Amino acid sequence: MFYSENGNGLNLMAMDAEQLRENAHKMVDVIAEYYKNIESFPVLSQVEPGYLQKLIPDSAPVQPESLHTVLLDVETKILPGVTHWQSPNFFAYFPINGSIAGFLGEMLSAGINMMGPGGGVIQGTASEAVLVVLVAARDRILREIGKDALGKLVVYGSDQTHSCFQKACQIVGIHPQNLRLLRTENYNEYALSPESLDDAISHDIASGLIPFFLCATVGTTSSTAVDPLHALGKIIKRYRIWFHVDAAYAGSACICPEYRHHLNGIEEADSFNMNCHKWFLTNFDCSALWIKDRNTLIQSLSTNPEYLKNKASQGRTVIDYKDWEIPLGRRFRSLKLWMVLRLYGVENLQSYIRNHIKLAQQFEDLVAQDTRFEIVATRTFSLVCFRLLPPNKNEEYANKLNSDLLDAVNSSGKIFISHTVLSGNYILRFVVGAPLTEERHIVAAWKLFQEASSSLLENS
Amino acid sequence: MFYSENGNGLNLMAMDAEQLRENAHKMVDVIAEYYKNIESFPVLSQVEPGYLQKLIPDSAPVQPESLHTVLLDVETKILPGVTHWQSPNFFAYFPINGSIAGFLGEMLSAGINMMGPGGGVIQGTASEAVLVVLVAARDRILREIGKDALGKLVVYGSDQTHSCFQKACQIVGIHPQNLRLLRTENYNEYALSPESLDDAISHDIASGLIPFFLCATVGTTSSTAVDPLHALGKIIKRYRIWFHVDAAYAGSACICPEYRHHLNGIEEADSFNMNCHKWFLTNFDCSALWIKDRNTLIQSLSTNPEYLKNKASQGRTVIDYKDWEIPLGRRFRSLKLWMVLRLYGVENLQSYIRNHIKLAQQFEDLVAQDTRFEIVATRTFSLVCFRLLPPNKNEEYANKLNSDLLDAVNSSGKIFISHTVLSGNYILRFVVGAPLTEERHIVAAWKLFQEASSSLLENS
Repeated sequence: MFYSENGNGLNLMAMDAEQLRENAHKMVDVIAEYYKNIESFPVLSQVEPGYLQKLIPDSAPVQPESLHTVLLDVETKILPGVTHWQSPNFFAYFPINGSIAGFLGEMLSAGINMMGPGGGVIQGTASEAVLVVLVAARDRILREIGKDALGKLVVYGSDQTHSCFQKACQIVGIHPQNLRLLRTENYNEYALSPESLDDAISHDIASGLIPFFLCATVGTTSSTAVDPLHALGKIIKRYRIWFHVDAAYAGSACICPEYRHHLNGIEEADSFNMNCHKWFLTNFDCSALWIKDRNTLIQSLSTNPEYLKNKASQGRTVIDYKDWEIPLGRRFRSLKLWMVLRLYGVENLQSYIRNHIKLAQQFEDLVAQDTRFEIVATRTFSLVCFRLLPPNKNEEYANKLNSDLLDAVNSSGKIFISHTVLSGNYILRFVVGAPLTEERHIVAAWKLFQEASSSLLENS
Repeated sequence: MFYSENGNGLNLMAMDAEQLRENAHKMVDVIAEYYKNIESFPVLSQVEPGYLQKLIPDSAPVQPESLHTVLLDVETKILPGVTHWQSPNFFAYFPINGSIAGFLGEMLSAGINMMGPGGGVIQGTASEAVLVVLVAARDRILREIGKDALGKLVVYGSDQTHSCFQKACQIVGIHPQNLRLLRTENYNEYALSPESLDDAISHDIASGLIPFFLCATVGTTSSTAVDPLHALGKIIKRYRIWFHVDAAYAGSACICPEYRHHLNGIEEADSFNMNCHKWFLTNFDCSALWIKDRNTLIQSLSTNPEYLKNKASQGRTVIDYKDWEIPLGRRFRSLKLWMVLRLYGVENLQSYIRNHIKLAQQFEDLVAQDTRFEIVATRTFSLVCFRLLPPNKNEEYANKLNSDLLDAVNSSGKIFISHTVLSGNYILRFVVGAPLTEERHIVAAWKLFQEASSSLLENS
C-alpha cells in the first residue's frame, strides 16, 4: 500500500497556488512511495484484459471526488493493470528511462503548462521523426519528377528495421510493394549488407522504379545490429536517395567515446534521430531529430494561416517549429532534456550507459556458462539475445520451449522480458536499461531463468 | 523572484525514492510560487529572438550542476523568453488549460513514467487526429478505386478550417489543387454553406474527380463559427465521403446542455475530436478522437512486428492503440483526463465553461458600449471578434490601426491577444479561457484597449 493518508473531500479550484502546493506535495509523497515499493509489484500486470471496465463507472461524476478517493482507485484499480516500466526487473523491449531530473523537468513543464520555444528539433517519438523526414524526402523527389510518379517511388531498409518505418510508408502513400526490407543474415550479425542494397537499387532502376529513401539503423530492435553507415553512405551517394539513420536506442551509447565509432559515416546522412526517453534518463516522450537540409522539411510541412502570423515568424527571426513536425503545438520537452543534461552532466550519463552495458555483459557471461543455453547474436550494447537449446535438437520444439520459458518468467511477476524471431528461431531478449537495475537484479533474474528452465526440461 | 532557496550541489541518483521526494517537494514550491506571482510577468515575452543562445553554454556540462543553479537559470534566463499561457491575462489564440487536477495527473503520469493502456482514443493534438482519419479515409476509397487514383481525390473544408487540415493533406499526399477550402461569408457567420459544398462536389464529380473527405468545424479558430453539421451530413450521405468534425475548441462547451445543439447532426459524422487541453482543464496535450468504424483506422495504421506480439494482442482480447495513432508508444494521457473528470466533476466543469462565456459576454458589452469599436462576428462561445473603427473609413488604414493596437496592448506585457483576418479585414481576437481569469482581468484589459486606442487615434 503506497497511499494510506486519510483525505477529505476538497473543493479544488481550477488553479490556486496554495491548493496546488498542498495537493502536489501529497502527490510527490505518493510517487516517492511508489518508487520505494516498486519491487513489490508484479512487473507485468497479472489481470485479465477488460478487468477495469467492471471496476469503474460508465460516466464522469457530477460532483467532485476527493484526491484521496481517486488515489485509492489508482492504487487498487489502475496499478494492478499496468506494467511497471520503471521496475529494476524490467528487461523487455527497450526500457524507457525516467529519472529524478527528467521527472523534475516534466513537473516544471506540466506545472507552468506552456508551449515550448524548443531547441533542436525534438519530436515525440522515432515514429514521428521518420514520418516527417519521409514526407520531406517524398516531396523533394516528386517536385523533380512530378506528383503522379508516387507509385514508382521505392524505399529501403532491412528486415530488422523498426516497424515505424513501414507505418510511415503507409501514411505517406508509398505503395506496399515498393517497400524493400532486405534480408539480413546471422553471419552478418543481422546488419544491412551494402551489396544487397546496391543490388536492389540497380534492379529497381532497371525495372523503371525510382529509389529515393534508405532507413538505416544503429541498434536494431531485435538484436541491436548496427548497419554499416559508411559503406551504405557510399552507395547512396551515387544516387539521389535520402539517407535516414534511426539510432532510437543505441544513439545514447554513442556519447561514450568507445561506442562513437558505430556512427562512423553519419556525415553522409540526411537525417538522424535518437530517443532520449529510451536510454538517456529523459522521461517519455522525447526524440531528438537532426536534419541536414531543414528547408526540405519546412517546404513539406509549412502552413501559414493568418491567425498564427506574428512579426517574429513573418520576419524569419525565429524558427517556427510547427513547420518541422506534425502537430501545431508542442510540449516544452526541451526543458526536461536540458534538466537531465545539467543535473547529471556528461560524465554521469556516460557512467550510466557503461554500467548498463557492464550488467548486460555479466548476464551474458552467466548465460554462456550454462551449456543448456545459446547466445544467438553478438552483444553490442545492453541487449542479450539468447535461447534455451532443445534437448532433442528439434527446432519447432525449441520455439515452443523458449516461448514457454518467456511465459514462465514473465507470469511470475518477478521480471519482464520480451522476445523476437531471428533466422526463423524464437529468441529471448534481455535488455538492461531501467534506471533502478543493479547487479542483484541481474543475478536474481538469471536464477529465475535457470529454475524455470530446469522445471520446463524436466516436464518435457 | 519565485525561486530563492539556497541550494547546494547534490549528487542526484537516476532514481531514488528519497531524493525524488526531497527534490520534487522543492519543485512543487517553485511551481506554486510561479502561480502566486504569475501576474507579475509580462504575458508576452519581451526579449529579442535569439537572446537565449548568448546566455547558455554550447555543450552539456561534464559534471552535474545543482538544482539550485538550474532553477536560477530557469528564472533568470528561460522565463523571460516565454509566453505565460496560464496567465489570467492571456486572451490570444485559444488558451491551453492547466489545472490542479490536470497537473496532478501529469505528475502521476510522468512520475510513474509508464506507457498508457489508454481509454478511448486519445491523440496528442487535433493535427494528429485529423491526420490519422484522413489516412483511413484515403485508404478506404483507394481500396475501391485503386491506388493510382490518388491524384483524383478531393477534400473539402471551408476557408475557416484550421490549417492542420491542410498540413494533413500535404502529409498524406492529396494534391494541393484538390483541397477545396470553400469561401464563407460574414452574412452567414463564416459557417460553411451546404449549398456551396453541394455545388463543389457536383462540379468535381462532373470533372472526373473523386470527392472523399469533408472536415467540418464546430468553433472555428478565427471566429468560432459553427458549420451546420445536420445539413452538411445530409449532403455527404448521398456520396461516399468521410465526414470529420473538428470541435477542438468548442467541443468542451457542448458538455453544457444549452450548447449541446451545436453538435446536432453529429450522428452522421465518421469521426469527431475535441482538445481537452484547450478548455477542459486538462494539461497539454490531450485530444480525444472518436471514430465510427475503427477498422478503417486499424487497417491503415497496423503493423505487426514479431517483437511486439503477445498473447493478448494476438488473441484480440485487447485493443492495440498503436494501430490507432502515429507513434508506437503513448504517454499515459488518460490518467490526467480521468483525474480532471473525477476531481472536478461534471457540474464544476460546466460552471467553468459558463463562467468564461459570461466573462466574454461582459467584454463584448464593454466593446459594444464604445462607439469607436465594432463587433465583427456574433459571439457564440468565449471569443469576441472586434476592431477599432478608422475615423476616416479607410479600410487599409483600419487594418494598420488594429495591427498597431494589437502591438500596443501586447507589448505592454499586461495582456496577450491575437488577431485574424475576416472578409479581408484585420480583426482582434479576445478569448476568455485561462483558468485564472476573473472579472477584474476583463475590466483591466478593456481599460487597456481604451487607453491604447485613444493614444493611437490622437497620434494619427
